[in-house]
This record gives sequence, structure tokens and C-alpha cells, in this order.
Amino acid sequence: MDGQQFRSAAHEMIDFIIDYQENIRNRRVLPTVQPSYIREMIPAAAPELGEPWQVIFQDIERVIMPGVTHWQSPHFHAYCPSGHSWPSILADILSDGIGCLGFSWIASPACTDLEVVMMDWLGQLLGLPSQFLACSGGTGGGVIQGTASEATLVALLAAKAKTINRFKSIDSDVDESQIVGRLIAYSSDQSHSSVERAGILAGVRVRLLPSDELFSLRGETLKLAMEEDKAKGFIPFFVTATLGTTQSCAFDDLSEIGPVCHQFENIWLHVDAAYAGSAFICDEYRHYLNGLELADSFNFNPHKWLLVNFDCSAMWLKNANDVVDSFKLDPVYLKSDRQQGQSPDYRHWQIPFGRRFRSLKLWFVMRSYGAEGLRAHIRQQIKLACEFHQLVAKDDRFEIPVPPAMGLVCFRMKGENSLNTTLLKRINDAGRIHMVPAKLRGQFTLRLAVCSRYTESRDIVLTWQEIERHADFLMGQQLKKFFSTAVA
Amino acid sequence: MDGQQFRSAAHEMIDFIIDYQENIRNRRVLPTVQPSYIREMIPAAAPELGEPWQVIFQDIERVIMPGVTHWQSPHFHAYCPSGHSWPSILADILSDGIGCLGFSWIASPACTDLEVVMMDWLGQLLGLPSQFLACSGGTGGGVIQGTASEATLVALLAAKAKTINRFKSIDSDVDESQIVGRLIAYSSDQSHSSVERAGILAGVRVRLLPSDELFSLRGETLKLAMEEDKAKGFIPFFVTATLGTTQSCAFDDLSEIGPVCHQFENIWLHVDAAYAGSAFICDEYRHYLNGLELADSFNFNPHKWLLVNFDCSAMWLKNANDVVDSFKLDPVYLKSDRQQGQSPDYRHWQIPFGRRFRSLKLWFVMRSYGAEGLRAHIRQQIKLACEFHQLVAKDDRFEIPVPPAMGLVCFRMKGENSLNTTLLKRINDAGRIHMVPAKLRGQFTLRLAVCSRYTESRDIVLTWQEIERHADFLMGQQLKKFFSTAVA
Repeated sequence: MDGQQFRSAAHEMIDFIIDYQENIRNRRVLPTVQPSYIREMIPAAAPELGEPWQVIFQDIERVIMPGVTHWQSPHFHAYCPSGHSWPSILADILSDGIGCLGFSWIASPACTDLEVVMMDWLGQLLGLPSQFLACSGGTGGGVIQGTASEATLVALLAAKAKTINRFKSIDSDVDESQIVGRLIAYSSDQSHSSVERAGILAGVRVRLLPSDELFSLRGETLKLAMEEDKAKGFIPFFVTATLGTTQSCAFDDLSEIGPVCHQFENIWLHVDAAYAGSAFICDEYRHYLNGLELADSFNFNPHKWLLVNFDCSAMWLKNANDVVDSFKLDPVYLKSDRQQGQSPDYRHWQIPFGRRFRSLKLWFVMRSYGAEGLRAHIRQQIKLACEFHQLVAKDDRFEIPVPPAMGLVCFRMKGENSLNTTLLKRINDAGRIHMVPAKLRGQFTLRLAVCSRYTESRDIVLTWQEIERHADFLMGQQLKKFFSTAVA
Repeated sequence: MDGQQFRSAAHEMIDFIIDYQENIRNRRVLPTVQPSYIREMIPAAAPELGEPWQVIFQDIERVIMPGVTHWQSPHFHAYCPSGHSWPSILADILSDGIGCLGFSWIASPACTDLEVVMMDWLGQLLGLPSQFLACSGGTGGGVIQGTASEATLVALLAAKAKTINRFKSIDSDVDESQIVGRLIAYSSDQSHSSVERAGILAGVRVRLLPSDELFSLRGETLKLAMEEDKAKGFIPFFVTATLGTTQSCAFDDLSEIGPVCHQFENIWLHVDAAYAGSAFICDEYRHYLNGLELADSFNFNPHKWLLVNFDCSAMWLKNANDVVDSFKLDPVYLKSDRQQGQSPDYRHWQIPFGRRFRSLKLWFVMRSYGAEGLRAHIRQQIKLACEFHQLVAKDDRFEIPVPPAMGLVCFRMKGENSLNTTLLKRINDAGRIHMVPAKLRGQFTLRLAVCSRYTESRDIVLTWQEIERHADFLMGQQLKKFFSTAVA
């Protein structure tokens, strides 16, 4: 394929994805294919000779689309949003077109230098404490990671290295593996599975602490746990606080947790706001960040709720050297005499070595929408969640176990878990809308997340009608059962 | 930006990147900007109101291009190739257009199921032993990682977990941290920095073993090291063999290393062929894979040399359960009753949680080029490296410390390291071509990698002329110095 053939193929592909998005309402949100369905539809081996583009292009609708879960559909309410916007896609096309890597500054200075400034722009929009921003001139700064899981792992590993070094500086003969065996990290029982997994990957204990009745981790709980573990000979060293949990969008109390970590000394406080972080661009939600000035790292995913395509996970460090010094290796083929120390070599800030030009996405999205446009997007999605909440609240067959938060509403039919598992199964089997469950204090709960930027009030109404339809059926069945039992 | 505005903006962007690629020869390959140059060129904060696309678009040439190192230029000979092709970009546009995530099968079945089959296609092209392929019906299979660094880390962490579990199964009271403190991994002193870094991240010792005169790790060296360490009470558990080192494209002797690992038992052998692996689609290079049947995992980067845009690092596991069982966590919001166990939940195979639809790139590239087209690309690039080698060999001011391998030629001016550092500095300062150095047994060496798919014989000639021009100058200076000393 030469440039001229690419031009026509790419124009066609652009038209295809616009058409896909504009007519996404017509597609069944959840596919009906069986596992391994593709193996039957395509050859068992790569072709020996190249195929014409038109043949390949036709297979998108034939082979791929039947197996796509349509995350951008206004009727997709599962998990959380997968960011998507036209300016973001333009940035990815440019990034692919340039085809550079940015592991060190000289490998492509624009790639690094735009990222530094974009992370400042974004941090300012969120009102982050200035110590986290590169423009403050201190040791802080931002970096784009692939996912929030990687951000948590990077923070955890840096904290682990820092703690080991602290013990070594006191006693250089100390047995490193013994220290590691005594380390203990904390997060709430509501935190994302990637927090517990980071502990497994890093080989350190993670203790999941009970959250309060609103699923929030409180300072006192953390304090008691750390005191208890310290008395047992453990070394508390790391805390992940979640702002906006996956299950119910609960917020750990950072204004309590920050001071507790500060009092304990030598505790790395990492704040994971993967989903809800985008909302902090709106003044009215920024109070959740109180206490962040006492944290060491903060992360949220613009690729979730801020209209940036995956992957773009924004992480800020108060002292970037904590990470850089932990993992730095500089082979000769990466040494450069051109760098003055003012720009980072971002490979030291992350797990992978290579990195794409992802900051273009932030640049195009922030400029195209403007701060005002982004805030309008967040507020509109929260408004839709409120509309859904009001619909549920009017139906007394349902209960709402926790107040709705951000774009998320947890709700369930009054009664047994089995009633709700059946309800959710019926909904997903019908495939007009898609949701996933939460389990809150043992209660199986349905979970509506406003995900698509195309979702409108009419979609919320339709979604609710679909849920009610299945609830009606289940209630009808229960009645039938009741009467047949009564008659018998 | 609505769909209609995107259509025209995207068509314009497509034209821009075609124009960029087709005229890339006219750009200075290495930029002249200073660190943090972008901060002076753009506002200090995101705009409050959205900006029109045309204003943003114009800033690409004004702000970004002056700071781009042009990896796709036929005069870029640094590091290794950064994969790039039109079909690959079409796949990324489609992936962005769909905007789904593939952490579990049901999250988007097409995303997972295409990846399984594409990794079979690709594995077959390379002639991998069938145990590594999902289509063999065994426990093996492939997965797309972000980078080779992540593949190494995943393998190392799985091997670590497996070893700990083995000791626990013998004695359930064994102190885990004591085991970790005794673990030791191996690779050659020529392996990529990411191997040593994986050890730092995983908290285990990595011993770098001396390579032979051709920079290859030999079986006997490994065997002696493992015996020595075992006698000291260490637990050898992991070996990374490199096929195509970064510095000189040396090949560890897998046909010796495989049997040594096998004899020792309970050693995880990981094979890192990040760059050179693409060449194994050609029969004449496949002999380097002898011994792979005794390995546990194999990795190479189609995003380097196989015309696939970053990121797409192909990893195969002989027993995928080794990885899955090590790190698996299944929260309720990820449980699905739709999966029959025939398709993997790829989140368990990797460090990050989220994942993009990257297998589309492999599908489009393998189909557009065909196996024959891909082989032709590899052979053409190796031919160009041979042409360069012949030019160097004719100039007796130069020496060639190791035979050229694949698309890489290491060479240096006879004489002091300082002469060669000066030569490389002059070349890169002039910015017409770009190379990075290697250090081979203390000798500072220049390193020409054929990177761009646009590189032709005329570019190789031009590159050599540029090198000779600077060599002439340096020799002239040396002569001047000699005569002025002689006169004095």
C-alpha cells in the first residue's frame, strides 16, 4: 500500500468510523458470539501473498463487528466510560503518522516536552497543589502512564525502594529480604483489584481495610491498623486512597487519611482517582481533594471520563526523583550530551521502556473543548445519572443502597440476591443495554454508569424502561408462583 | 467537533501525514531545539474556551515538528526501527473509532478472539514450536504486550511466583521473603537494560554473565554460574536469552542454553528477540531458534521491524497458566457467565488492566503485505546493511569489531575512543543522519541500524559520504596537529 492508496483507504476508514459512531444506537450493545468465534470465520494462517485493501476492509463488518461490545453506545452502562472524542483520534493519527518513540528526551524532544507542559495544564485544571506541577520549579511533575494499574504499581515500587534504602542508610548490613517481608501496604476493601494485584506483583503484603457505611476509608481505621501492625513488627509504608471506587464511586476521606499518613512519617500516600478524577475540573467536586497536599502521588485516567482515547493515565509525583532513583539504568546507547537536565527522560518514570506520543491527545482535547467544554461534558453526564436516580427512586420495587455519585447509580430490586442476578442476566441477555454488577456488603447490586458521550435523557428513559420491563416480568413470575403455591 | 467537522479535519490530517512521510528526506533528522523548548511556544494554561481546529492544526508544524526526531527518515540509523506502515495506521484508526477495551473476553469478544488467532498466525510465520500456539490445543498461547520490557517482567514475576509456590508446596511454613532473598536470575552482559531493570522492579538478583568474543552467551558459562551460585545457597530460577542484542545484534546460543536450563530443572527460560525476532519469518535465520522448544516464553516486537506501529510486543507462553495463576484476581464486576473457558481474559496475562484492540494491526499488516511481502521487507533491510558494511570495509581508516548482523553494522575509526566520540558528536551535531553508539569491550563504537522502510541504496551511500566527510575532517585535524608538533 503506497501513500496514494492509503489516502483513499484512510478517507474510507474515517467515513466508516463516523458512520459507526453516528449509527451506534442501532447496534445491539452486547454481542451474541461464542468464545473463539473468529477462528471459524478466517483462515488458519496468514496469506502468503498480500490481499487488496477492499477485501480486508469488508471483513471489518463481517468478522469484527459481530463480536464488538459497543462501549460508545449510549446504552452501554457497564464498568466505566472508555474515553472517545474526535480531537483525540486526530492526535492518535498524528502520533502514528510521526511514528517516533519518546523513551528519552533526545529520542524525540517534542514528545517529552509537550507531555511536561500538558501535565501542567491538566494539573492546573484539576487544581492540584503546585508541588505536583513541573512549572512550580520543584521536584514534582506529571507523566502519562498507560493505565491506573501501572501508576499504582510504580508508586508502590518506588515506596518499597525508598523504604528499603531508608533502612539501609541506618544499617548498611540489614537483610533486604527481611525488610521486604515486614512491609505492609493499605487500601480499602473497596479499592480496585489492581491495588491488591500491585501488592502481588511487588511481593509485599496489602491489607484491605474495612470501609464505613458509605464505603469510604476513614482516617481512624487506617490509624488503628497501622498502629496494630507496627506493634506486631510490620513496617507500614504505603497507602492507596481511592477517590471514586469502581463498585459504588465511594470516596476515601483524604482529609483524614492525609494527616494520618503524615503523622506516621515515611508513609507513601498514593491517590487513585482513575474514574472520578476527571470531575475535579469542576469546582464543586474539588473538595474531595482536600488532604492531597499531604500525598506523594496522584493519578486519574483522562482515557476514562475526559474524552481522551485509551491509553492516557495521568500521574503526578511530588518528588519525581523517588521514582527515577529507584529504577534508573543508563546504558551507553542511551547517553546523550544534548540534555541539560531540564527535561525528563520519561523511561525512568514508568514500567515499559518505549512510549508513544500520547500528550498530543491531551493537547488537542483540551484545546478543542476548552476547560468550559470539558466541564460541561462532566456536568451533563452527572445530570443524566441524577435523572436515572430519580426514575429508580419513584419505583418502590427498587432500593438504592448508596447515594448516586458522579455518573454512577447503584440500585437493586428489594429482595433476594437471586432476584437481582436473574434481573441482570435477563437484561444482558436481551442485549439492548449492558450493565455489570457490584456486591455491596454481600448485596448483589445493579450498577448503572453513564458512559457514552452520546447518552441523552431519552437514552436514560429507554434504559429505565428496559429495566422495568424485565422487573415486571420477574414480578409477574413471582406472583404466578405465589398464586400457584397458594392454590396448591 | 462533530462528525462532519471531524471528517474534514481527519482527511486533512491524513493528507498531512502522507505529505510528512513522503517528504521526510527534506527534514533534518535530529532537531536542534533545547530542553523545555515547548514551554516558551504555547500558553501556560489550557484555554477556557474551545479553539477552532484550524488554529490547532497550524501549531503542528509550528510547535511540534521543530522538536521531532524523525524516526521514519531514511537517514535515521539510531537505536532500532520504530515500526510504521499504512495498513497499521488504518488499524489504529479503526481501534480508536471503536473505542472498546479488552481486559476480559466479554468486554469485547472480537478484541480477545482476534488476538488469539493473530498470535497463532504470527507464531506460525516464525516457525515457533507448536506448544507455544493456542491452536495446538494445549496450555500455550500468545498475547500482545506493550513492550519487550513488560514481557520480560511478566515472565520474571511468573517464574518468581512459581518458584516460591514450589518451595511452599514442599514446606508450607517456609519464609517467603527468605526464598526471594536467595533467588537469582541470569542474562548476558549484553542484554538490554530492561532485563536488569526487571530484576530491580521484581526485587530479585540478576547476574550478568560474560559473553564470548562474539558477544554471545554460551551454555557452559551459564552452567558454571548456576552451579557456583547453587553451591553458595542461591536459587537459580530464571534466564533471559537474547536473540539480537541492542548493542551489536549478537545472538545468545539458545541451542546450548536451552539444554542447560532443562538439565537444571525448574529454570524459566525467557527468550527476548525484541528486534531480530522479525527476521525469523525468513527460513535462513530460523536456526537461531534452535533450543526454543526448551524455553518457557518467547517475545519479539512487531512494532520494531515488522511494519507494525508501536505498541505491539508479541509474547508467547508455553504454559499460560503459569502467568495467569500468579496474578489472578476476579472481582464481582468482572465476573461473566458468558465465557466458556475457551477464550482468555487477557488482563491476567499482563501488568496493566486495560488494553486496546491492537491485534487489528497484526491482521491488517499480515494481510496487506502477505508473508512474502514481509519477508521481502526484512531481506531488503538486511541487504542495505550489507551494502553499508561493504562501504566501510573498503576504507582502511575504519575497523569493524563484530560481523554485521541483521540490519545492524558496528564500526569505528581505528584509534582512540576519543576520536570516535568526536566523530559521532560531529555527525549528530550536523544532524543530516543520526546514530547512537555502542561500547564493545570498552571500545566506543558507532552503530548503524537500517531503520526506515524508506531507506534505499542511495541513502546508504549518502550516509556513508556524510560519515566520511567528518572522518576526513578529523584526519585532517590530526595531520595538522602532527605537523605543527613536528615543526615545533
